Amino acid sequence: MLVGNLSRTINLSFKLGLRQLRRMSSLPVPPPPSLAEGLKIPQKILAGPGPSNVSERVLQAHALPTIGHLHPEFCKVMDDIKAGTQYIFQTKNAMTLALSATGHAGMECVMTNMLEPGRTILIANNGIWGVRSKDMAERQGATVKEVTAETGSNFTLAELEAAVKEYKPDILFVTHGESSTGVVQPLEGIGAMCHANNCLFAVDTVASLGGVPLKADELDIDVIYTGSQKVLGVPPGTAPISFSQRAVDSFKSRTRKPTSFYLDLDWLGEYWNCWPDKGRIYHHTGPVNAMYALREGLAIVAEEGLENCWRRHRLCADRLHEGIQELGLEFFVADPDKRLPTVSTIMVPEGVKWNEVTAYCMKNDLVEIAGGLGPSAGKVWRIGVMGNNASIKVVNQVLDSFGRALASVGWKK
Amino acid sequence: MLVGNLSRTINLSFKLGLRQLRRMSSLPVPPPPSLAEGLKIPQKILAGPGPSNVSERVLQAHALPTIGHLHPEFCKVMDDIKAGTQYIFQTKNAMTLALSATGHAGMECVMTNMLEPGRTILIANNGIWGVRSKDMAERQGATVKEVTAETGSNFTLAELEAAVKEYKPDILFVTHGESSTGVVQPLEGIGAMCHANNCLFAVDTVASLGGVPLKADELDIDVIYTGSQKVLGVPPGTAPISFSQRAVDSFKSRTRKPTSFYLDLDWLGEYWNCWPDKGRIYHHTGPVNAMYALREGLAIVAEEGLENCWRRHRLCADRLHEGIQELGLEFFVADPDKRLPTVSTIMVPEGVKWNEVTAYCMKNDLVEIAGGLGPSAGKVWRIGVMGNNASIKVVNQVLDSFGRALASVGWKK
Repeated sequence: MLVGNLSRTINLSFKLGLRQLRRMSSLPVPPPPSLAEGLKIPQKILAGPGPSNVSERVLQAHALPTIGHLHPEFCKVMDDIKAGTQYIFQTKNAMTLALSATGHAGMECVMTNMLEPGRTILIANNGIWGVRSKDMAERQGATVKEVTAETGSNFTLAELEAAVKEYKPDILFVTHGESSTGVVQPLEGIGAMCHANNCLFAVDTVASLGGVPLKADELDIDVIYTGSQKVLGVPPGTAPISFSQRAVDSFKSRTRKPTSFYLDLDWLGEYWNCWPDKGRIYHHTGPVNAMYALREGLAIVAEEGLENCWRRHRLCADRLHEGIQELGLEFFVADPDKRLPTVSTIMVPEGVKWNEVTAYCMKNDLVEIAGGLGPSAGKVWRIGVMGNNASIKVVNQVLDSFGRALASVGWKK
Repeated sequence: MLVGNLSRTINLSFKLGLRQLRRMSSLPVPPPPSLAEGLKIPQKILAGPGPSNVSERVLQAHALPTIGHLHPEFCKVMDDIKAGTQYIFQTKNAMTLALSATGHAGMECVMTNMLEPGRTILIANNGIWGVRSKDMAERQGATVKEVTAETGSNFTLAELEAAVKEYKPDILFVTHGESSTGVVQPLEGIGAMCHANNCLFAVDTVASLGGVPLKADELDIDVIYTGSQKVLGVPPGTAPISFSQRAVDSFKSRTRKPTSFYLDLDWLGEYWNCWPDKGRIYHHTGPVNAMYALREGLAIVAEEGLENCWRRHRLCADRLHEGIQELGLEFFVADPDKRLPTVSTIMVPEGVKWNEVTAYCMKNDLVEIAGGLGPSAGKVWRIGVMGNNASIKVVNQVLDSFGRALASVGWKK
């Protein structure tokens, strides 16, 4: 056989070539010794604000063979993700897809597509995500206004309405789960108020989606996104996002292209086959394996049922909060109704060094408990109860480790 | 034990809660039936322009447990990636990292960080990547000039120098491996010419890196990036990138922030601990598992040795080209010296339907051969020989399938 013979001949010269080259290597930058060590990753309990632990089922989906980003089997995966994303957001929006980047890119996708010079955005800023969304919005050359709430609190509908009437924004941006302070923002009535004031309604649900009841269409939400690495229990790297027809119309009426090609809704919509009058085309090479994992994470939520998922998170957060009170600690968010169930913020008592406690949990139990971020830095611990970790068993493990850590630094209630 | 008792009590009420909820579910958007089917992904030979096949070792790294994006073990992974990226690019640049997005984001990262209104970029446009880089550059409000070469050809140093002298750009952007046409761009002398003209030199190596000899520092390259999914043999989703001190200085002299927060070099440099005077901070939640895979892909190249990797790709491309000529086909790139070894473009003969041939290979052999893209659409087949597929065995399998496909549509040389 011709092919076989050729193969043998060339394989031989190939091997000779390699041997020769090994002797004559003279690269200015040598191979780094650190890469010669094996990759060792411990199994931890990720009870910080995310990522959360990923199930073996999702990890194994991550390791399925890579195929082409436009192969029919992968287009099916994308269609599954679209349907799963519509389900978790409870929306019928045609423009529903997942970004080939992390949750931060979801925020940037809102700003780059919905804003341009001449448009105004109103940011409801009560934590780090308000600060970051403001930063991203300003980069688009838009007019950026903000309404603020006390740290550790949320906004009333009346406060948001007054700000919308004052600034007349094209879009209002609200963070559903402010994970830096552990605050949940009630969303009822905001969408209708926005629409009555000729304003779009955008919501960040990175830290809340799946852990707090939410029905995007019923809430009149125009843009909504989340990250893969929290309640969905998928490694970080993808961001489900959805745009209402109203948001799509606003996008279409832009006077210039978005500053980002990678996140341009026109292209993304084509790649995800969301435009009614266009077919699927190549935009970029999607992260094929990350999308397998996201598809599987969505399938797991669909199997459990979204309402069951919400209820499980509520029950586990209640157990956590009960345990925190048993330990004699106080919450950063005074009003229980304002506490985000997925990420809880716990006051660091006077005289206790927060990082000695987190270091104890990690060192002794491989349990991650996080410190604060932004306005809560140095003041709180943050404990996440999300996805696979929203189980009473895990919550009790975390409480047990946390309790021993507090005892180890001499804390007594 | 207090914790154990509580656990049992709450587990019971939790289960009751789930049962009740299953009966009373009334969500407006029901769980999609497609997600109830198992995820089935076939094992193919990916001999298109990418992604290429991923080794079991890299896939298993992808499936290691997710940990926190700032945990010490993950910071070590990031440091390993930085060192491995310096090695594959042959650079000592301190500002070396990997983006949490695909190769297209690498291109966008160049544009968003190096350009702003008032700056001029010159694009060497001889294919789809010239078109796309121009599009991205325009979105930054920069002045965009271009120099073009005949489709299927590359640029001489004299042509580029004349254009640089005419347009006086702040930066010249060149694609090393133009995968739409199968053309390689020689890089010798361009960097020095740019610097003599007060211009930076940026190079896209998504389709070439690791398959074509390249030493960034010796070539005076200021910005260089690639994708994970070609020669590195890693799933798509990450993009190694490196900036020279000259590029960093240009970044620092910007008058406004980049349009992208996600790709902002100031933040990325902090997250990757690249700034000499700053520590590592939180920027975004990195795609932890994708970075494990990238780390392992870089480790495999380091083990083989970069020069061996280059040589293996050259030998396998030679074998492919020999086989193509044996089949009686002609190359889109007339001059053998201008042919990119990693992605070869083959003329579709008169009377043959290109997609009948690619469909045959996929249906019968699960072998992917691609059609053209951009200027080569409908005119060529594209065969990729990259990473794990740069083996004589795979090349012969692809040639065998391709030959039978051509015979099946009646092609005779």
